[in-house]
Order: sequence, then structure tokens, then C-alpha cells
Amino acid sequence: MRLRKKDWSSQVFEDASDYTVENFETIKGNWKKEIGNSMLHLEIGAGKGDYWHQLSELFDDRCIVAMERDYTASSIALKKLLENPRSNQRFIYGDAEKLSEMFAPGEVDVVHLNFSDPWPKSRHEKRRLTYKDKLDEYFEILTEDGEIWMKTDNVGLFNYSLVSVGSHKFELVEADVDFRSHEHEDPFTEYERKFHEKGQPIFRAIWRKKKC
Amino acid sequence: MRLRKKDWSSQVFEDASDYTVENFETIKGNWKKEIGNSMLHLEIGAGKGDYWHQLSELFDDRCIVAMERDYTASSIALKKLLENPRSNQRFIYGDAEKLSEMFAPGEVDVVHLNFSDPWPKSRHEKRRLTYKDKLDEYFEILTEDGEIWMKTDNVGLFNYSLVSVGSHKFELVEADVDFRSHEHEDPFTEYERKFHEKGQPIFRAIWRKKKC
Repeated sequence: MRLRKKDWSSQVFEDASDYTVENFETIKGNWKKEIGNSMLHLEIGAGKGDYWHQLSELFDDRCIVAMERDYTASSIALKKLLENPRSNQRFIYGDAEKLSEMFAPGEVDVVHLNFSDPWPKSRHEKRRLTYKDKLDEYFEILTEDGEIWMKTDNVGLFNYSLVSVGSHKFELVEADVDFRSHEHEDPFTEYERKFHEKGQPIFRAIWRKKKC
Repeated sequence: MRLRKKDWSSQVFEDASDYTVENFETIKGNWKKEIGNSMLHLEIGAGKGDYWHQLSELFDDRCIVAMERDYTASSIALKKLLENPRSNQRFIYGDAEKLSEMFAPGEVDVVHLNFSDPWPKSRHEKRRLTYKDKLDEYFEILTEDGEIWMKTDNVGLFNYSLVSVGSHKFELVEADVDFRSHEHEDPFTEYERKFHEKGQPIFRAIWRKKKC
């Protein structure tokens, strides 16, 4: 079973190679030019890709880049891509450790953090995607008016992020502690749909780079 | 009935006159000296005074000042005061329109906004207690490290306030979108108890004056 699964995933990765980016030397600084769009969204931790696919349809004139470090989730995201690929989609199998090697300063318009791992223990604070070291990295690759769009169902992560992001190089421009109580064009992620159907509130915030 | 109610309230106001402040000329700039404590909390919109009374017990070495503009609610708050008065309590029957006539610059340590009227319509934005003009007034009377402590059950008011306060002279230092899911020494207001018992989340934020 293990081998069979591996084979299937490898095949998907191979078939989707036009949409995956592994070597960043030439594309760094040229993402928008290569894809042919004027704005770039980067989803960090795209999971099985539900949001990525829907966002690429919603913003079909923007580059929509997904990043995921889980191999199985990545395979599923790419399998779905192959069923209905869009030219504005790109995929990075990897994690957010070295964003500055992937994107030039000011190259990204929006960083999306959807239902990120909350890492609830204090000793794991540095692993949270809204920890200040991570914010430094987003700040660098984001455009002058670049934004972080965050959604989560996790109270602890949302509380933490409101203070962490808002006090470090970014300012809050939108907050919603019950995002799905109104209509929005922003797509549901797979998790979000589940939590929402259970009646749990979805928390959402948008921060913009502070002017220095 | 109307007359009887009026009589009862008037009597309460008279009996509580040692604790109510009407003339601010001498006390402005001297609140802490007059009451004999080193810190001052001001609750704007104290309602029937539940929080005020409990806070004055919790912080029995601080001046706890309540402000309320509704006559009946004020009477009830003062009636409860008379049953168990504490020397650190003061009451202002009035509204937050002229704070700078009541308090000197830097005289207040904490402004409390508990379950304030959300004024949900856009055209009433200016009436919200977290509208920028109000924030200017709090900023003036607050100490250098002065804080705003806010609690509400209202999604719209909380969303609005997170952006409004955090982008105007104050910075968010604590946020909790489910404040009552943990133990806190902060007392329950009357409304808060009701909402919490219904299972509704209580939202809470603390902002501190930004260093210029």
C-alpha cells in the first residue's frame, strides 16, 4: 500500500511539473512576468489545495501560488490541479523557512495564512506562522502596500496573532470575529467549511505593511 | 408610580452625595490626592454599577470612578453603593462628552468600556465609544502607560474597535475572542453574566497608549 501510494503521488508530481516550482534562481524576482499577471498571492500551508484552486478562479488575473510541506496533501492538491489546471497557478512543495530565496523583496501582494497550526504551547511560539521572525520574512517579500490575510477557527492563535502582527511592522486594517455570519467572496477552505457547519465562528484579520 | 420612583431616586442621590461628583473645578487634577489612592480607573457607561462595585473591592487601593448617563441605572448603582460603600468609589452622573473638564491630562490609569452601545448603523459611528474623537479624549486624560480595557458581546463593535483603536494613538496589548473560556479575576458585568450563561462568547481587548 505504501509503495502504491508513493507511486501515485510521484506520478502526480511528474504530471504537474509545469505548475510546480523547485528551482527559484530564475523565477525569483520574475514571478509576475513569467506567469503574466500583475499581482501575486501566496498561500502558506495550502493543505489539499481547496482554497488555492478557488482563489485562482476568483482572481483569474492574478498569480496564485500555493506552498505546502506535507507530501500527501501536496499530492492531493496537485491531483485536483490536473483535473482543471489554470495558467495562473503555481505550487511550491516546501515550507516557509526560506521565503527570501524564493521571492524578491516586494514581489508578493498578499500572504494568506489559512487555518495554520496553532502550536498552542508557549515553547513552540516560534513555530507559529505569525511569530515575529516569520513576520520579518513576509515584510521583506511583500509589496509596499502588501497584506497578510489570515483565517482561523483557533481562539488562541487568533488572540496571539492580533497582538503579534499588529505590534510588529504591520497594522490591522480588517478584523472579523464571526467572518461567516455575512456573505463574502473569499472562498471557504476545507477545514473552514467543516468548522462553519459545526457552528463554530471563523476568525479573520487583514494586516497591511506599516509605513515607516 | 412615576412620582414615587422619582422620589426614591432623588433620595438615593441625596444619600450618596459623598460619593457623587458634580463640580469638577476642585477635583480635576486632584482625584488621586482627594481619594487617597495612587491609581485611577474610570468606567464609562457603568449601568447599574455591578462592575464598578466589584472592581472597587478587587482594587481596594485604587480610585474606582463610575460614569453613567441614565438616571434610573445611576439610581440603582448608587442604591447598591449605599448598602456597602467603599471609600475608593466615586460616581459621575453624566456622559463622556466633556472628559477633559473632569480629569486633568494624564490623571487616569485605565478607561473601562463595558458592553457599550454598539451603534451599528454607519451614520452613528461617531457615537461609538471607540470612535477616534473619543479616543482623542481618552488619550488626553490617560497616563503615559494608560490603558483602555474593553469588553463586549457585540461582534460588530468589537471588529470596529480592533481597527479603530489600534490605528489611532493606541496599540493592542491583549486580545481575547473568548474571554470567559478561562479564569480571570476581572469581574463579570450584569450583561456579561447573562450573555456568558447563554453560551455567547465575550470579546475583550486591552490597548495601551502608543509612545510617540
